[in-house]
Amino acid sequence: MTASSHRTAPDHTHPDDVPVQTALAALADPVRLVLVRELAGSADWSRSCGSFDVPVGKAALSHHFSVLRGAGLVEQRDEGPKRVNRLRRAEFDARFPGLLDLVLRDD
Amino acid sequence: MTASSHRTAPDHTHPDDVPVQTALAALADPVRLVLVRELAGSADWSRSCGSFDVPVGKAALSHHFSVLRGAGLVEQRDEGPKRVNRLRRAEFDARFPGLLDLVLRDD
Repeated sequence: MTASSHRTAPDHTHPDDVPVQTALAALADPVRLVLVRELAGSADWSRSCGSFDVPVGKAALSHHFSVLRGAGLVEQRDEGPKRVNRLRRAEFDARFPGLLDLVLRDD
Repeated sequence: MTASSHRTAPDHTHPDDVPVQTALAALADPVRLVLVRELAGSADWSRSCGSFDVPVGKAALSHHFSVLRGAGLVEQRDEGPKRVNRLRRAEFDARFPGLLDLVLRDD
């Protein structure tokens, strides 16, 4: 067993179990919008939590990822010392058609 | 000039001038979701601010309507002592296609 910077594996919520209000609240935040937009432009599992250019500390970043997991937007897994991410694009689109498109388009 | 319960006419923001984050934040609130859903089921200008069944006081309700106006979701006008409302459905749909549909569908 290798040492990890995370004690327990992250909890996830499937988009099918997410109320629309939770999804909207998760996306209505400037830091989380950056995370989602950067993930949308990156290959699955290619981005560790520390690789995002957002102006928040570690604890706040961890909270933001927790909100994104709870809204069915992000899946995470631990790879050795790193926690890596993917955007749950297909599942989230199936649950909330068009919502990610609105968030990801340039405006 | 008739007396009105509102001192000045309300300010409005057109949906075209609303950032997506502002639109999402306006809709990510349980009280405002009720207001939007009830307005969607009512004829334009048929609902006064006091006609909604939401568990908040007058000042809070006034704030919620201000947020909805600022997100391009609601238009208001004063009719004598009453302030009446309409959902800006067409304009908001043109700016954020599908977003209101997600919020208004049963889930």
